[in-house]
Amino acid sequence: MLETGLPNLANGAGVSRYAQLAQDLRQRIVAGEWAAGAAIPAETDLAERFGVALGTVRQAVAMLAAEGIVQRVHGKGTFVTQGLNGPSLLRFFRFRGPTNEPPTARVHRCQTVRLRAAEALALGQQTGDAALRVKRVRLLAGRPVLAEDLLLPLARFEALRALPTGEWEDLLYPMLARLCGVTVARANDELSFGHLDAATAALLDLPEGAPAIRVDRQAFDLGGQCIELRTTWGDATAFHYSAEMR
Amino acid sequence: MLETGLPNLANGAGVSRYAQLAQDLRQRIVAGEWAAGAAIPAETDLAERFGVALGTVRQAVAMLAAEGIVQRVHGKGTFVTQGLNGPSLLRFFRFRGPTNEPPTARVHRCQTVRLRAAEALALGQQTGDAALRVKRVRLLAGRPVLAEDLLLPLARFEALRALPTGEWEDLLYPMLARLCGVTVARANDELSFGHLDAATAALLDLPEGAPAIRVDRQAFDLGGQCIELRTTWGDATAFHYSAEMR
Repeated sequence: MLETGLPNLANGAGVSRYAQLAQDLRQRIVAGEWAAGAAIPAETDLAERFGVALGTVRQAVAMLAAEGIVQRVHGKGTFVTQGLNGPSLLRFFRFRGPTNEPPTARVHRCQTVRLRAAEALALGQQTGDAALRVKRVRLLAGRPVLAEDLLLPLARFEALRALPTGEWEDLLYPMLARLCGVTVARANDELSFGHLDAATAALLDLPEGAPAIRVDRQAFDLGGQCIELRTTWGDATAFHYSAEMR
Repeated sequence: MLETGLPNLANGAGVSRYAQLAQDLRQRIVAGEWAAGAAIPAETDLAERFGVALGTVRQAVAMLAAEGIVQRVHGKGTFVTQGLNGPSLLRFFRFRGPTNEPPTARVHRCQTVRLRAAEALALGQQTGDAALRVKRVRLLAGRPVLAEDLLLPLARFEALRALPTGEWEDLLYPMLARLCGVTVARANDELSFGHLDAATAALLDLPEGAPAIRVDRQAFDLGGQCIELRTTWGDATAFHYSAEMR
């Protein structure tokens, strides 16, 4: 099953053959040809299908693996990433108490807003485009521990606009995948320190001005497009993070 | 050049042949048979020398690479790690001002102390064994930015005891390698939040009780032994750290 072949850009545009194949595979994954969690074809099959050398396929797949778009499982094959789904921001904190139960979430507000220039730039949208601004609290054993402010471009998340705040699920990313077809492949978290304003402090049952750790997140879909901006605040005295250096 | 062979532990002790070879190579590296930064012999040479299959050598070398003891350079060979040497704790902070010049260090005090139980356990020593406790400040453009408390077991760092505080170098790890033959291969940093006590605040020109980020470090030699415990304090308002999630 030989494809019509890769677009003839390789030499002219200075793009290597494997980078070109990686781009083609990336687009197919984003378009859903292979679903999140599904296996992509074997490398020998891809080589035959696209009419390229096996080494080219291997380089292209290695590139996608380095980007976190696919994951190789030894002896089993190569799979489209399931995407992120865990309560990941809690990894920066160590909250006391009976925290064996999974965290829950409570959406306080979901508004449609217009993107400012810097936000639009980060999200690949135009200044003034519509977005959903969501105020949410994460809870452990019913106790509020993180206050979050999410910004989601409406063009990608139209399905969430009419969703009543009480029907948002505890885990955002699996919900984005199911309702909007967007898989979050990776996220970048920038940590810094600050003091809580009155409104955020009230959400967390902390005094205004309490020391807090601020996490600014950018989350990316399988195609590498930033699809979420998020600011999270948590009690600084619960902050805990481990980093290894080699 | 066939070695006398690996000790005959492999089957009896439930240790795989490649893990046994990795242990042998690790000991040779720690003992200095191949110096920091030097190439180890080619895999085919190691297979011949130790009388094992090439696949076994590859697994053993992969194990050492995963531990950070050796580094593979594509097309060039496998090298003993140079060890850590940069001003690494500054990566958790963003200090303002003309910080293009490299950080310096000023040792305030170096005392011989007795290890407490938990310290001795972490450092592979006995409770009551002697260690050097070093109080040090890191400076950027002459301005103190980090206050550090180092604990170094005397058994490994005897050469530092008589060193005048004015002669300690700005970078600790290259000095440990040169004067004591100890290469720091990796380190684990645990971040948390706290408030400065009066003495530490004075070192940093900050008010007592100022919010601070605390970094608790364990540093490990090539053999995987913890050889340093360090606590570092820096101004929380300068804290900045970036973490990626996939």
